[in-house]
Amino acid sequence: MMILRNSPASPFGRKVRIAASLLGLADKITIEAADTSNPADTVRRQNPLGKIPVLLLEGGRTLFDSRVILEYLDHIAGGGRIIPTEPHARFEALRLQAMCDGVLDASILQVYEGRFRAADMQDQKWLEYQADKITRTFAVLEANPPPLDATPNVGQITLACALGYRDLRFAGTWRGAHPRLVAWHDAFAARIPAFAETKFIP
Amino acid sequence: MMILRNSPASPFGRKVRIAASLLGLADKITIEAADTSNPADTVRRQNPLGKIPVLLLEGGRTLFDSRVILEYLDHIAGGGRIIPTEPHARFEALRLQAMCDGVLDASILQVYEGRFRAADMQDQKWLEYQADKITRTFAVLEANPPPLDATPNVGQITLACALGYRDLRFAGTWRGAHPRLVAWHDAFAARIPAFAETKFIP
Repeated sequence: MMILRNSPASPFGRKVRIAASLLGLADKITIEAADTSNPADTVRRQNPLGKIPVLLLEGGRTLFDSRVILEYLDHIAGGGRIIPTEPHARFEALRLQAMCDGVLDASILQVYEGRFRAADMQDQKWLEYQADKITRTFAVLEANPPPLDATPNVGQITLACALGYRDLRFAGTWRGAHPRLVAWHDAFAARIPAFAETKFIP
Repeated sequence: MMILRNSPASPFGRKVRIAASLLGLADKITIEAADTSNPADTVRRQNPLGKIPVLLLEGGRTLFDSRVILEYLDHIAGGGRIIPTEPHARFEALRLQAMCDGVLDASILQVYEGRFRAADMQDQKWLEYQADKITRTFAVLEANPPPLDATPNVGQITLACALGYRDLRFAGTWRGAHPRLVAWHDAFAARIPAFAETKFIP
């Protein structure tokens, strides 16, 4: 049995949980909550960066971050299922994953600005710098939404998790200006039960 | 000819430049400076996240981030040279890369805290939160330094760039408490000419 250290609201943990479901590996993974803000939580010994998700393998090895875990799960499921092996498709998928991980990184910095700092210590310029990354990326994706494979690839999984995180933490404000991404999101949600199953309800 | 949009001080760009050298691809890549802080720079159209490095392929496709570019360069060089194909070695390399990319992400947040914010807007708790990630990760690496392959893998390349970035931006304060990492750094520098060649001199 593998153990996934995770927090239920983590979009990067959601990537792992959706991938595990798509690959038929969900029953091989036990989820254990981790509190990255608690210095006594063992997660900091499992990943010295103190970040989730972390996958604990049988035998004591640990894997992180989400990209590495997704590739490992794809590998033990036989390979080529959520990371295409054909080079053009592979690098399109990896590029989309990097783009949407970047949206998540910027979104988390926006969230942390409010969580870590008193109101008078929050920097509007910094918040706008992060918001602009997301605005530009969503504009690119809206102009040319990616395909949605029968088994979604790592890029498509990450896009779904990025849109879901904007719904969770930013009240879905992305939706108004991005009707094609809304349609893409809805198609993903309709076809992938793990997306609804991993939705965090605050 | 491929084009690498980069900034000479970028540790992630340094990963790409060292990989290109190791793989014999340096003469296939032209480096063009990018200013991610300038809204008019074309880099924001090449990568909507506005981050470097970005690799522009012949035919107009773009690739980012550094992990994706390193995998692409390994692929066009024949595969398996800086990303091992044997699974155990592969995931060790990818995990080390993730760990050292995490050190770089935390380091860059430390730098940005000073670059973006007035002194009275800088948050010591946030800076310590980032510093603690680096302290814990370097302690793990000092206790058990990774091997250094004849052709360094992506994890080893990233560790060298992380140590180099701590030298560049943090006056090498990591060195005192980490003699085994100093020895590892010096072995890398002695064997890999591209490391010195890509050192940024402010």
